[in-house]
Amino acid sequence: MKTREVHLAARPKGWPTPEDFAVVEADLTPPEDGEVLVRNLFMSVDPYMRGRMNDAKSYVPPFRLDQVMTGGAVGEVVESRHPGLAEGDVVLHDLGWRELAKGRGKWFRKLEPVEGVPLSAYLGALGMPGLTAYVGLLDIAGMKKGDTVFVSGAAGAVGSLAGQIARQRGAARVIGSAGSAEKVAYLSERLGFDAAFDYKSGKVWNLLAEAAPDGIDVYFDNVGGEHLEAAIDSFNQGGRAALCGAISAYNATEPPAAPRNLISVVGKRLTLKGFIVSDHGDRLADFTADMGAWIRDGKITFEETVYEGVDNAVDAFLSMLGGKNLGKMLVRL
Amino acid sequence: MKTREVHLAARPKGWPTPEDFAVVEADLTPPEDGEVLVRNLFMSVDPYMRGRMNDAKSYVPPFRLDQVMTGGAVGEVVESRHPGLAEGDVVLHDLGWRELAKGRGKWFRKLEPVEGVPLSAYLGALGMPGLTAYVGLLDIAGMKKGDTVFVSGAAGAVGSLAGQIARQRGAARVIGSAGSAEKVAYLSERLGFDAAFDYKSGKVWNLLAEAAPDGIDVYFDNVGGEHLEAAIDSFNQGGRAALCGAISAYNATEPPAAPRNLISVVGKRLTLKGFIVSDHGDRLADFTADMGAWIRDGKITFEETVYEGVDNAVDAFLSMLGGKNLGKMLVRL
Repeated sequence: MKTREVHLAARPKGWPTPEDFAVVEADLTPPEDGEVLVRNLFMSVDPYMRGRMNDAKSYVPPFRLDQVMTGGAVGEVVESRHPGLAEGDVVLHDLGWRELAKGRGKWFRKLEPVEGVPLSAYLGALGMPGLTAYVGLLDIAGMKKGDTVFVSGAAGAVGSLAGQIARQRGAARVIGSAGSAEKVAYLSERLGFDAAFDYKSGKVWNLLAEAAPDGIDVYFDNVGGEHLEAAIDSFNQGGRAALCGAISAYNATEPPAAPRNLISVVGKRLTLKGFIVSDHGDRLADFTADMGAWIRDGKITFEETVYEGVDNAVDAFLSMLGGKNLGKMLVRL
Repeated sequence: MKTREVHLAARPKGWPTPEDFAVVEADLTPPEDGEVLVRNLFMSVDPYMRGRMNDAKSYVPPFRLDQVMTGGAVGEVVESRHPGLAEGDVVLHDLGWRELAKGRGKWFRKLEPVEGVPLSAYLGALGMPGLTAYVGLLDIAGMKKGDTVFVSGAAGAVGSLAGQIARQRGAARVIGSAGSAEKVAYLSERLGFDAAFDYKSGKVWNLLAEAAPDGIDVYFDNVGGEHLEAAIDSFNQGGRAALCGAISAYNATEPPAAPRNLISVVGKRLTLKGFIVSDHGDRLADFTADMGAWIRDGKITFEETVYEGVDNAVDAFLSMLGGKNLGKMLVRL
């Protein structure tokens, strides 16, 4: 049995290039007792994967060279030798970056498809990015009704949900930054952000100060660097930042610009708190109930940018790092 | 009735100089109904006062030009027209920087002197600096038994107490930085720090990494800049920093060095939290009980560096900013 899968061929220096990856045909033996074989329908490409391409200590171990990478995927069971799963079951798992996935049954979580919700949503709004937005905004930043909330990377998979959750939870004002006029229009016109700006159109602190004349209370940081500095400038007393990632730094070969106004963290009694979604599985049930209802009731919407086929998976990943996606970047397999 | 008091004569640019201040003789009318007249015995000079000399929005309003400054002081009531205070009472109040203080009775808190504890301690270990150390370490950084704790500015009024409180509360290891070999010896030999280094003797991150081979869990930051960057480098997973002040920045005319490794705040799930002690008056009773017992039992000790007379108050303040004090800097009046 043949499958095709994407290997890490070289550790990227700075921005990854197509040459850092290889699509490889591989042989697969049939599933053994307790295993299942899954045909992947969608795989996810996410910013955190860039970190795993470095040979550096991080919160997840690095990908191994000349081995298939891993990542979120949704697939359909085609052969099962595990009692809990049957042919035709739809499952969520971490064996992405390949057409066929084989492994122990317990690595695969059976999904109960909901009418009107595409399976791909389990890699986005109803999946890890959604939980990241939910936990970061509500638990880490402790967003409360009446807060003014600023989200960077607001047209991305996580940011677009963080802004909409803020709206559902009674934010007084939701502000987003993104990297193009098209994305800014999407935030304002489609997602109901009160203000949005293209961070490439000026200095971030000026743009944020204009968008938030009365300051901000919560900052959901997907970007780092100048965005964090601007947020510290705009924070009201007691402001809280959830630091989710820093896509501005992932491909930097030099350390990124650092906020030079950290002294305000004292005077304004600010809290800057980093988090990793995998620590917060205890919130999955609350999240699934809330987000499922918001999506079902049309209160939260999401976009997907979908590339086709394993041969385009690397391109999808590189385009996502370059900000070419609106909402969640996915590959249909 | 004549008194002498210290005025702010000019707003300092960068490091203050003696010319920014003036000792002025002033007339004082007798206390009116509800007022008391107090002869100050000790006044405090503290790093936060530097911020009040700028004409900038901060958590405390700026000092006014050509007016007497304010600050913590301990004095003795010499005339009372307030029913709650009598001649001879010893009081704690905020009308420092002057020989005689006059004001409404409720501005003055009567102290019950404790045998063996000098009155000056109410401006240090038993006062605002002590509460700062207590709240910052235990509440803001959430220090727990078994933590490795790093304190910068550890020979100062707040830092020397933060390190000793960490020891009393079961820290596995207490590490301090200070600005001279004499201070380092004081930390190691007198205060029981497990390790201490002179931050001027090398790169802070190297010195800290050597002093904390297994990393740190809590950082009590009095300094900012390179110290904060080094702490982020050394933090273990889930590390917590209480940001108390940034004396490295108070006199800077350029923004200070900023930590370029903030991306680690995400991967290590760090929390950086600023605070201002005046928000935490609800902890005064706990603090007073704990600290009083620790001092009485000889478990916590403190040093004072005392200058004499209102004419030397500015010199005391400038010397404190320059790090010439061991423990609390005070002026005896």
